[in-house]
Amino acid sequence: MSHQFGRLLQLTTYGESHGARIGGILTGMPPGINLDTNLIQEKVNRRKASQNLFSTPRNESDIVVYHSGIYQGKTTGMPIAFSVENKTKKSEDYDNLKDIYRPSHADFTYHQKYKNYDYRGSGRASARETLNWVIGGAIAAHLIPKIQIFPYVSQIGHFSLLENELEDITNAFDYPLHFPNLRKGEEVMTYLSEIQAQKDTLGGAISCIINNLPVGLGEPVFYKLQSALAAAMMGINTAKGFLLENAIQTSQSRGSQVNDEFDEDFKTKTNHSAGILGGISNGMPIGFTVYFKPISSIGKPQNTVTHEGLSTQIEIGGRHDVCAVPRAVAVVQGLTELVLADLWLLDRLHNTKIY
Amino acid sequence: MSHQFGRLLQLTTYGESHGARIGGILTGMPPGINLDTNLIQEKVNRRKASQNLFSTPRNESDIVVYHSGIYQGKTTGMPIAFSVENKTKKSEDYDNLKDIYRPSHADFTYHQKYKNYDYRGSGRASARETLNWVIGGAIAAHLIPKIQIFPYVSQIGHFSLLENELEDITNAFDYPLHFPNLRKGEEVMTYLSEIQAQKDTLGGAISCIINNLPVGLGEPVFYKLQSALAAAMMGINTAKGFLLENAIQTSQSRGSQVNDEFDEDFKTKTNHSAGILGGISNGMPIGFTVYFKPISSIGKPQNTVTHEGLSTQIEIGGRHDVCAVPRAVAVVQGLTELVLADLWLLDRLHNTKIY
Amino acid sequence: MSHQFGRLLQLTTYGESHGARIGGILTGMPPGINLDTNLIQEKVNRRKASQNLFSTPRNESDIVVYHSGIYQGKTTGMPIAFSVENKTKKSEDYDNLKDIYRPSHADFTYHQKYKNYDYRGSGRASARETLNWVIGGAIAAHLIPKIQIFPYVSQIGHFSLLENELEDITNAFDYPLHFPNLRKGEEVMTYLSEIQAQKDTLGGAISCIINNLPVGLGEPVFYKLQSALAAAMMGINTAKGFLLENAIQTSQSRGSQVNDEFDEDFKTKTNHSAGILGGISNGMPIGFTVYFKPISSIGKPQNTVTHEGLSTQIEIGGRHDVCAVPRAVAVVQGLTELVLADLWLLDRLHNTKIY
Amino acid sequence: MSHQFGRLLQLTTYGESHGARIGGILTGMPPGINLDTNLIQEKVNRRKASQNLFSTPRNESDIVVYHSGIYQGKTTGMPIAFSVENKTKKSEDYDNLKDIYRPSHADFTYHQKYKNYDYRGSGRASARETLNWVIGGAIAAHLIPKIQIFPYVSQIGHFSLLENELEDITNAFDYPLHFPNLRKGEEVMTYLSEIQAQKDTLGGAISCIINNLPVGLGEPVFYKLQSALAAAMMGINTAKGFLLENAIQTSQSRGSQVNDEFDEDFKTKTNHSAGILGGISNGMPIGFTVYFKPISSIGKPQNTVTHEGLSTQIEIGGRHDVCAVPRAVAVVQGLTELVLADLWLLDRLHNTKIY
Repeated sequence: MSHQFGRLLQLTTYGESHGARIGGILTGMPPGINLDTNLIQEKVNRRKASQNLFSTPRNESDIVVYHSGIYQGKTTGMPIAFSVENKTKKSEDYDNLKDIYRPSHADFTYHQKYKNYDYRGSGRASARETLNWVIGGAIAAHLIPKIQIFPYVSQIGHFSLLENELEDITNAFDYPLHFPNLRKGEEVMTYLSEIQAQKDTLGGAISCIINNLPVGLGEPVFYKLQSALAAAMMGINTAKGFLLENAIQTSQSRGSQVNDEFDEDFKTKTNHSAGILGGISNGMPIGFTVYFKPISSIGKPQNTVTHEGLSTQIEIGGRHDVCAVPRAVAVVQGLTELVLADLWLLDRLHNTKIY
Repeated sequence: MSHQFGRLLQLTTYGESHGARIGGILTGMPPGINLDTNLIQEKVNRRKASQNLFSTPRNESDIVVYHSGIYQGKTTGMPIAFSVENKTKKSEDYDNLKDIYRPSHADFTYHQKYKNYDYRGSGRASARETLNWVIGGAIAAHLIPKIQIFPYVSQIGHFSLLENELEDITNAFDYPLHFPNLRKGEEVMTYLSEIQAQKDTLGGAISCIINNLPVGLGEPVFYKLQSALAAAMMGINTAKGFLLENAIQTSQSRGSQVNDEFDEDFKTKTNHSAGILGGISNGMPIGFTVYFKPISSIGKPQNTVTHEGLSTQIEIGGRHDVCAVPRAVAVVQGLTELVLADLWLLDRLHNTKIY
Repeated sequence: MSHQFGRLLQLTTYGESHGARIGGILTGMPPGINLDTNLIQEKVNRRKASQNLFSTPRNESDIVVYHSGIYQGKTTGMPIAFSVENKTKKSEDYDNLKDIYRPSHADFTYHQKYKNYDYRGSGRASARETLNWVIGGAIAAHLIPKIQIFPYVSQIGHFSLLENELEDITNAFDYPLHFPNLRKGEEVMTYLSEIQAQKDTLGGAISCIINNLPVGLGEPVFYKLQSALAAAMMGINTAKGFLLENAIQTSQSRGSQVNDEFDEDFKTKTNHSAGILGGISNGMPIGFTVYFKPISSIGKPQNTVTHEGLSTQIEIGGRHDVCAVPRAVAVVQGLTELVLADLWLLDRLHNTKIY
Repeated sequence: MSHQFGRLLQLTTYGESHGARIGGILTGMPPGINLDTNLIQEKVNRRKASQNLFSTPRNESDIVVYHSGIYQGKTTGMPIAFSVENKTKKSEDYDNLKDIYRPSHADFTYHQKYKNYDYRGSGRASARETLNWVIGGAIAAHLIPKIQIFPYVSQIGHFSLLENELEDITNAFDYPLHFPNLRKGEEVMTYLSEIQAQKDTLGGAISCIINNLPVGLGEPVFYKLQSALAAAMMGINTAKGFLLENAIQTSQSRGSQVNDEFDEDFKTKTNHSAGILGGISNGMPIGFTVYFKPISSIGKPQNTVTHEGLSTQIEIGGRHDVCAVPRAVAVVQGLTELVLADLWLLDRLHNTKIY
């Protein structure tokens, strides 16, 4: 039950970084929807490693294959199974990690919890799993084509973008590092080169704006829109925090300063509520930011211990990103798509006619 | 399905602020556990309004009644149903709100979503629901008595506590406002009096430290410990953000600065990971902070619209807290208990013997 | 998770035979539906003990109380909590059972499984729980008012009704024993008097006809209409078998004998399929029969063992029905209502529009 | 949610008869269990078509491929994904069915429910899906190796086996037609040849004995052992009824005749309860029978209608079994394995220690 996402639109996933395939089953898609598989593949490609993103040299083609649930280009209402081959796994890269716990890495907790942990490439803890989410989200997005989701890198290391520095966030994927300020982006790239040369890694943040939401997404009490989004985002590898837009500033304010007065069209004059009232979308834009710690796999020498608890040193080789944040932008998009499509389906139930 | 919390330990709740009772059913508690109902009531009392907390004058006795699942003081393994009477509801306080949308309030979204919204006291959107969570959590805590959970108010308005200003957070409930710095707490109370006099409200933040966790709580992929905590906390009324300890600072750092090296006892020398690796507890303390916007119900005049979209003004009477944050400390505790007890149960499954 | 019934329309129940109350929470009812609470109470009353039904002298008033989810007579879309007081529990009746396993009774398996079993009145294994199902079903029925459900007693002991002996099954609740043949019913009552005099009990069967179903109820693969009905019915206390109409005869036939040819209005000329094709209703009537063993609690002396495994004898006193089947007719109705209403909601999802 | 089976051990499946692959994801298997993939393949082979079984000439190799969750021959605790290629699909066989509803076939209900139904080979309604269940069950069986499950064909058409005619049911798969009486089996085969020559089909029944069960499988109220078994079995294509052993006879009896007295070892002298008390296994053998109607696809001319409701005639070609019952024996086994393994996991939770 912990490998399944969503309530009516459910994505069940499988796969290890070094297994034959990773993939998933998406259930709950209504029948009769035309699937644009080119668009899905394009969204998948945005997550791929590239020098542009200072990411791992592991170069996967990542072609999505569909096994079921589509007939003559349309959804049939049946489970949509998909998978992607793991082509370039080099398990031998990991042989020296076999008996060692990497600092700040999941292999300690997985090994303690499951005993016979597959140490190669982190198994299910690998960020390769996020590929499944991008695919699932890209399919789900066909349920809610009007909703516009614009994620972008808003911070890398200590470089962050103020609101007036943002260029075209609606096309963030066209910017190097998906950081929507060309000039500052170049500074960041220079800095990332230094970090890479030092065999180190860097954290950052992704912000996301959602426009054109209908009123009514989000369920009361335990499946509020902000809860669903936070749970999804906090599940991304290395995520450490989730803030709705201006969360901290608002928490320092008075009610009279941050209440949003309604206009006669039911839009609000301000949007301190970040588009959500009582856990339900009010039709205004939603903004949020997710904070990521640096990837723990660094090439620098580190002290650590073996599985038996003996002190040792480690220098982690293998293929790792300098900064995972740019590649995670596609993941934020995919998860947002999954959350909103699921909530759209749930909201349909409140309009059910009787028989 | 949106009125249910947890996967193996499931709390299903019901009740409106102005209905006869609120309550819930907790399923999944193993049999044979001695329930300390005095302790449960004490935890419930910590959430009660009091002048000490600058909270609503609505004074509920909030006595928990149990309907099932307990025999001779022990759990039977069957559903534990509980409820609390709503004694002092004054629905007439809300009559003037009948046709008006309060700014930044759930009544707009509920009415749009469900059409025949019960406007009195916010229905299911009322913070009275959080009482159910405190009760559920207090029962659940009997599964994990060794784990220590210490929530406290770390910020009210612009007053926040630096780490070196914290006094005894293990007894935060003994401090006025549950703000563990006596001197600064008095300043805050003075400030809250001013805010109250101005018929305004104030936001804030709650931090929480969890000690003595076993290794292994948290499930891979979609039910990671940080996801479960974030979803829970973001569901509290007016919550706007969730950060694991030092989330923002860590996101601005290099891997080499924030990786946690292991000692030979498998503890780590530092705890930048905030007690979680790969979504699973590593045995180190967990820290997090939740940010809350001010309560939207203020006595000051505000511009708004009627259900028909006509401009009007409103001054909200009724019984409302100046700052909800102190009362929410008990709620943070209850939700943390529910999350950890559920993850404890889930983790048991990985040790299942075969038959 | 085993105290919850349904997928979108979910009934979570609690309560022991000898606790203070039994009750439940029904989630998933859409908002805006007028609830006829008199009709619900009437359906509850049909399950009550009466001499007419040769049932337990325990005489409960069984007044349903609602705690939430209803406003101005309509559903609000929020959880509907209800409960019923257990008024006439006489726990002392059970004192002599404290250390003894009754033959063919759940107290052996419950005690082995949960250790500290509440022996009084069978706890959760008591048929009193079925009252919750009747209430839940009676509420759920408001979603599908057009569907007609006609359960009736079709067999008591060796007395069974051939098709040509059936009188008005649409008013079975008006017949003594809910056995729709007045003359034969009198024979059965005479026989039941004898059985009662002998301190014995009797099994039987309930049949049910469902008319006016829409096409499309039932979900593929693991939630087929016949699976959902069978699971529900087999959960009734003492149920031993479930057959769709003519199941055995059909299993002895050739395809050419029992295929149902379509007419031009998509009705079928025959109905050997009992209204279900591929797990989905085809618009024709559904018929099924549930078989019940006799209640195990008999007054006759029986050999058995103590909890320590020592041989002993027992004569079970307390208040027990001679034949539980007539009272179970209301339960079959309630469960059928719950199943069909849930499947109606699920079927709505296949018509979801995109946004 | 209707493509998922089980509560803790969950099998999610996908695939159409004429898609590229069918397969599934099994979650909840504890880590560290040695998987015997040869045994799994052997169980899959038992379901394969063969002349011996008078089954469809479609000859699939049905080699199970695993994609995840296994490392060095052991389960890792992560999802186990598997699939099987659909090699010999001949969609052109179905071209003449494109606009016609086959009598007693799922294509009417699927088309009405989902509109754009994939008519080829019945899509998800195809019995090819049952292959997924056999695989899932064969994996699940590794959790409960001590439990012995013996399904066999107990009836084909009007030929049925009395208890004293049963030969070695523990090796039913070694008998032609899995009908454990060699002499009578030959009569049946002669009869099946006649039926086949007449382009007709035949129904039947499968019985199953489960030995060596632990006490305690089955959850109260809504997930009783008999409910779980009945739901599973009724989901098999063409299943029409489910009876626990002697269900009908017991329903015609008195309590004093069918109560099972306990021995001092807590076994019972008789087993009228068919191994289940209060929905929970009592350690005695469980017996049940499932009744199947004949396959609806017959070669004989039948009257039917087009999608537009115009009368027409049809003679169904393609590759279909004369009698599906023998092949379904492996399916009954797989589903029983899934049910019992899931209930075994659930029962573990009642022994959970506190932390």
